[in-house]
Amino acid sequence: MLTLEEPLQAAPHQVVPATPTVAIVGATGAVGVELLHCLEARNFPLAGLKLLASPRSAGRTLRFRNQELPVEALDEASFEGVNVALFSAGSGVSKRYAAAAVKAGAVVVDNSSAFRMDPDVPLVVPEVNGAAIASHRGIIANPNCVAIIATVPLWPLHQRHRIRRVTAATYQAASGAGAAAMEELRESTAAALRGEAFTPRVLPHPYAFNLFSHNAEVDPESGYNGEELKVIAETRRIMDVPALPIGITCVRVPVLRAHAIALTVEFEAPVTPEEVRATLAGAPGVRLVDDRAANHFPMPSEATGQGDVLAGRIRPDLGDPSGRSVALFVAGDQLLKGAALNAVQIAEQLLRR
Amino acid sequence: MLTLEEPLQAAPHQVVPATPTVAIVGATGAVGVELLHCLEARNFPLAGLKLLASPRSAGRTLRFRNQELPVEALDEASFEGVNVALFSAGSGVSKRYAAAAVKAGAVVVDNSSAFRMDPDVPLVVPEVNGAAIASHRGIIANPNCVAIIATVPLWPLHQRHRIRRVTAATYQAASGAGAAAMEELRESTAAALRGEAFTPRVLPHPYAFNLFSHNAEVDPESGYNGEELKVIAETRRIMDVPALPIGITCVRVPVLRAHAIALTVEFEAPVTPEEVRATLAGAPGVRLVDDRAANHFPMPSEATGQGDVLAGRIRPDLGDPSGRSVALFVAGDQLLKGAALNAVQIAEQLLRR
Repeated sequence: MLTLEEPLQAAPHQVVPATPTVAIVGATGAVGVELLHCLEARNFPLAGLKLLASPRSAGRTLRFRNQELPVEALDEASFEGVNVALFSAGSGVSKRYAAAAVKAGAVVVDNSSAFRMDPDVPLVVPEVNGAAIASHRGIIANPNCVAIIATVPLWPLHQRHRIRRVTAATYQAASGAGAAAMEELRESTAAALRGEAFTPRVLPHPYAFNLFSHNAEVDPESGYNGEELKVIAETRRIMDVPALPIGITCVRVPVLRAHAIALTVEFEAPVTPEEVRATLAGAPGVRLVDDRAANHFPMPSEATGQGDVLAGRIRPDLGDPSGRSVALFVAGDQLLKGAALNAVQIAEQLLRR
Repeated sequence: MLTLEEPLQAAPHQVVPATPTVAIVGATGAVGVELLHCLEARNFPLAGLKLLASPRSAGRTLRFRNQELPVEALDEASFEGVNVALFSAGSGVSKRYAAAAVKAGAVVVDNSSAFRMDPDVPLVVPEVNGAAIASHRGIIANPNCVAIIATVPLWPLHQRHRIRRVTAATYQAASGAGAAAMEELRESTAAALRGEAFTPRVLPHPYAFNLFSHNAEVDPESGYNGEELKVIAETRRIMDVPALPIGITCVRVPVLRAHAIALTVEFEAPVTPEEVRATLAGAPGVRLVDDRAANHFPMPSEATGQGDVLAGRIRPDLGDPSGRSVALFVAGDQLLKGAALNAVQIAEQLLRR
């Protein structure tokens, strides 16, 4: 956990105007490009838009609302006049530049893991704990993609039925490891189809028609990898259930940009699949895809490009004869609700204050 | 469940000679080809080998021990002189022709689901319940691929530590749906990489860079699909724990021929990951792949072509604070241990009688 050296204080100039100037840090990355798309698709009110990236990408342009916007090299002075800074360039960049953005008067919405467990930084999924945004002191953290996609359906279930245990196995897309990993999936698959060898450069294992335990470092003590530990800690924090028992296995599958999760949820008392279905049918950010006759359930191909988390395969857990456990399968676009869309939704709530 | 109309009796001629004549029914299919490979690789003693398939495939040849063997059209008279008939052409063919094979004096090892739940037909994973082979009355059933790949590691754990609940999420390869599904995965992926549309012919959903709930029909009542219900029923039967609580989600992933399974196993009393690792280290048919420092765990790419089930990611289930649950991740070649190899191992035990 990284804690800011000096606690941030919400300065008066951090009240975001209704039509703010926004900066995107990491604008050329997989999430950066989606941040642009979300701002455009949602008609986000803008006084100005500043695209920031590493010096390597500076000079490029990106299209936004029929204009070619220049990408500028990020430095300490980049945030002058910026009201909202959407960071998505990795923890290192966030740790180095977030304070400068706050000092310049911006509210930072940070997509990295740098501040997610900092008690002074709200960690927000708007459908779950949007009210926490109001407590920010300059930085709001955008959660891990799996934590977002899981908590959108878990939260209404917890509110209505009280969850006491979660078991999850993930099917995670390449996009979570960035645009280069998506390209590696495409390139290595093309090579495999041609019968050619391919040496992985971005991910640690062959990706073509293969899957592997998530590439985050494994804690030698617990045996859990960094991704799993993030999902556990962040899910507990977002849902404000500090000791919720969560067992999770995170797996990288050869899919481009939508994650899926097989969830087994144990409640405090018996709950029927029908009750779970009814609860999710009306839940914000959730779309039921649960057609048994047509064998039509959540799939990455249909979650891609969607803002909602798809939920289906709602059925009793046959592993728990007590009737307290229900199984379901969910899918969400890793780059949208799992990253860019959630950040833009947070920014939208800032405008409303 | 299909029950034979008349109970089969083991006839004296069903004692298989040490060097038998073997027939492969469905020789040109994905599993059929692997049956040939297994017989060759394991130096299976053969007086003769008969390749049987649909009239469509008759006239083709398949290479075996440096000879081109002709594929013949299957009919009722095909089994004359055959001592062991390895069936792998779907339930329909098994239901129609297995009795003829038995009547002709052959022992049938059936890879379909036709007889798996017939109380007169042993359902066998040699490492688990090989002794059940002796009780056959002419037919021995080869289990579902996921049931095999799961029970190879679960059985030694159950013997040593007593399992009381299993939660599983599968990552199933195309091969389980046959050679045509493997080809559809390759073709549709090539089309996706070219940016071209592709209409699925074999599987119900787009497969390129996508995944979907298993394509078996879904029971409208329970919400479980046919694959999941098979795995539950067969795992209980193979391990002889008739009421073992098993919750499972079966998912088809864009991998060619090895299945993986995320398993959470609850034991009757607290068990440490170290005890689980020690039990699996010496278990027949299991190979530990569990290197936390190198982030090296079971993967389809490494399970492909291997007879063993790879097991790793052995760690406490953080969803169960009681210390009774352990998580692990396994992978096995669907066409080998999940099908052809297991059938040939059963046939080998027949010779030994």
